[in-house]
Amino acid sequence: MNILSIIEKKRDKKELTNQEIEYFIQNYTNGKIKDYQAAALIMAIYINGMTDEETTNLTLAMAHSGEILDLSSFNKIIVDKHSTGGVGDKVSLILLPLIASIGIPVAKMSGRGLGFTGGTVDKLESIPNYKVDLSLHKFEQNVEKIGISMISQTLNLAPADKKIYSLRDSISCVGSIPLIASSIMSKKIASGAQKIVLDVTVGKGAFMQNIENARNLANKMISIGKLANKETICILTNMDEPLGYSVGNTLEVIEAIQFLKANDMPEDLKEVVLELGAYMIKLANKGDNIEENKEKLLEKIQNKKAYEKFVELVKNQEGDISYIENPEKFEKAKYIEPIYSNKKGYIYEINAKEIGKLACYLGAGRISKEDKIDNRVGIILNKKVGDKVSENEVLAYIHASNIEKLEYVKKELLEIIKISENFTSKNKAIIEIIT
Amino acid sequence: MNILSIIEKKRDKKELTNQEIEYFIQNYTNGKIKDYQAAALIMAIYINGMTDEETTNLTLAMAHSGEILDLSSFNKIIVDKHSTGGVGDKVSLILLPLIASIGIPVAKMSGRGLGFTGGTVDKLESIPNYKVDLSLHKFEQNVEKIGISMISQTLNLAPADKKIYSLRDSISCVGSIPLIASSIMSKKIASGAQKIVLDVTVGKGAFMQNIENARNLANKMISIGKLANKETICILTNMDEPLGYSVGNTLEVIEAIQFLKANDMPEDLKEVVLELGAYMIKLANKGDNIEENKEKLLEKIQNKKAYEKFVELVKNQEGDISYIENPEKFEKAKYIEPIYSNKKGYIYEINAKEIGKLACYLGAGRISKEDKIDNRVGIILNKKVGDKVSENEVLAYIHASNIEKLEYVKKELLEIIKISENFTSKNKAIIEIIT
Repeated sequence: MNILSIIEKKRDKKELTNQEIEYFIQNYTNGKIKDYQAAALIMAIYINGMTDEETTNLTLAMAHSGEILDLSSFNKIIVDKHSTGGVGDKVSLILLPLIASIGIPVAKMSGRGLGFTGGTVDKLESIPNYKVDLSLHKFEQNVEKIGISMISQTLNLAPADKKIYSLRDSISCVGSIPLIASSIMSKKIASGAQKIVLDVTVGKGAFMQNIENARNLANKMISIGKLANKETICILTNMDEPLGYSVGNTLEVIEAIQFLKANDMPEDLKEVVLELGAYMIKLANKGDNIEENKEKLLEKIQNKKAYEKFVELVKNQEGDISYIENPEKFEKAKYIEPIYSNKKGYIYEINAKEIGKLACYLGAGRISKEDKIDNRVGIILNKKVGDKVSENEVLAYIHASNIEKLEYVKKELLEIIKISENFTSKNKAIIEIIT
Repeated sequence: MNILSIIEKKRDKKELTNQEIEYFIQNYTNGKIKDYQAAALIMAIYINGMTDEETTNLTLAMAHSGEILDLSSFNKIIVDKHSTGGVGDKVSLILLPLIASIGIPVAKMSGRGLGFTGGTVDKLESIPNYKVDLSLHKFEQNVEKIGISMISQTLNLAPADKKIYSLRDSISCVGSIPLIASSIMSKKIASGAQKIVLDVTVGKGAFMQNIENARNLANKMISIGKLANKETICILTNMDEPLGYSVGNTLEVIEAIQFLKANDMPEDLKEVVLELGAYMIKLANKGDNIEENKEKLLEKIQNKKAYEKFVELVKNQEGDISYIENPEKFEKAKYIEPIYSNKKGYIYEINAKEIGKLACYLGAGRISKEDKIDNRVGIILNKKVGDKVSENEVLAYIHASNIEKLEYVKKELLEIIKISENFTSKNKAIIEIIT
């Protein structure tokens, strides 16, 4: 076997065998296959596609290219949850303690944000003293002890995926369904997931801009799940506008705390949390009725069990829980200023990607991996798509640390939050469930 | 403009502009565009193709990536001749002095052989003291003085083509018509050709294995020629069996000398030489009637003018002409042994590629660029396809410098020279003329 014949086959739209895919992944990871050869193969895959079987083999080969987190010692089904990325997405912060509060173990390794989408690890780190880099031993101990731990990716998970992802980025091969699907699924499998609920975001602030592409990606991941024996359910959710109201690390943590305290549950965020949660319960074999599962979850919020689990999680990871108990303590941005509507009507668009970019510009995100994040800054919307608005009503609050950035964002936000005289309905948070 | 958007366009089967192609070639040549990005683009070109205009722009951009030989000072039309490669191909050695003998200037830079095909420069170097590395000044002086000079590629011709060719080789992207066509034509244009006669070889020992592919390549090159204002004619010639009888450097030079002396003109070699020559005369505006042109060429052989021009060429490049005058002087291989037919019948196949590989194994060619060549060794066929053969008749002579190699080649040759009881017709040397 050699890389030339493998490239040739895919170039000619033929199916690669498992041996060929494993040979490629092993030898690309160890550097024997060169970047330019991998680039040629990746481009051929992009153009000529891959069958479900090929994609599954690629996924498994990438998953096994590095360390694999073994969670089998818990003797319980570990259901992982993953989102394909969005703006204002604090679902993990809310949903995972919630799930843990009903007795389903959560052992979660999360990533950091890059570009206009945030990362759960960055958000957790905005809680003073919260440790995201626990040892694997401590991580497993925590799951054993309180049923939940949330850390950053400490293991060398799926290094082949990292290498291929970065290559794809530099050769215009990011947007390929088999490559995206195998990238996501390989990381999930390497991080020990046995069953997976995927939040496939769709819309202006998502990787998948339209439902058809999202559906194709979902189906591909479900096929991989079937062939790899990791039951997978995909929930297509709307990401045209940000999820909930807050965008920015501390701001999102506070929104999550308010949600868990049942003080304030934005409708779209609530729908997504409950839908994903209900399917996680189902996959954990703890209840087949989705509506009943949602009731169960709501109850855990109402009786504060989910909130208590979150406090327990933060405490166990050495975070300062006084901030959770009293979110007013969180350090605030230097400037907090409202922007006002200049006409009346209905909000018909708040482009999530544009909001994400503005938050990133304020300092809430990274352009390159080395950038430092300012936890305090961001944007809190006061209106969502479909809301009625009068003239001079507050549309959003900007949290900025710098006056020039504040002024720029003020001006931009007025363009991004679009108002029409015509009635506009709210966005549907849940678009489709694909099993 | 950036490489990502260029890759993206070709990935999506869109047409690249001249600016985009020039940007790619310039920045790949200077190293700003990386090999892996070029590899992705090349694969996209391989799969999605290129229009004639794109291919022409690529050709011209590659031609202008390095030095360009300017032959305009001669004030005469310079007609170049090029072959897509074959085994036993000594056409340039015969044809170019022949053309020069009728007053058409020949300023030829040739390449070396690699793999199973020989190179004209290697053959010339088997003439003792022949200098292939003249200065450009001396080269031009020679053309001015005696109407012909044949040297190796001393200029940095089309470096982008060299870089892309070597990349294609390592990413299974050699066999793409637009890439082959632009590679050939860029070198011809860079080496000063104003009009071009292309010998497109077809068959087992050629790059193009079937007529359809050869025709596609020919048409692509003719289109490039039209758009680049370099009139081009393609002659499809048979390369199923070696051309003429001899394969190996000194052996081919001797066959060329015998031909030029009108002592011995193998039929297929004669047809190819005359056809290419007749079209070169036509392109040089020295005669439109192909049959008359052939007569003119034959006359120059019969009256020894072509042979005299060859001697003049060798003398001018400091070669020892006593070898030309008396080919018996050429150093011989240590072992010269015949192989005999083990049955009677008709020769129906002498696979040119296999013969080329055997000659290479004997030491006549290079596997890698650094290999030394043994000029003496090779194979002289005694029969051609379609010839009748009796039992124990000589099929070929092996010229070897090593007994093990001799024995191996003996055994192999008997397999390669295939004999059938049924009558087989001779191969047609000229397959098609495409203008």
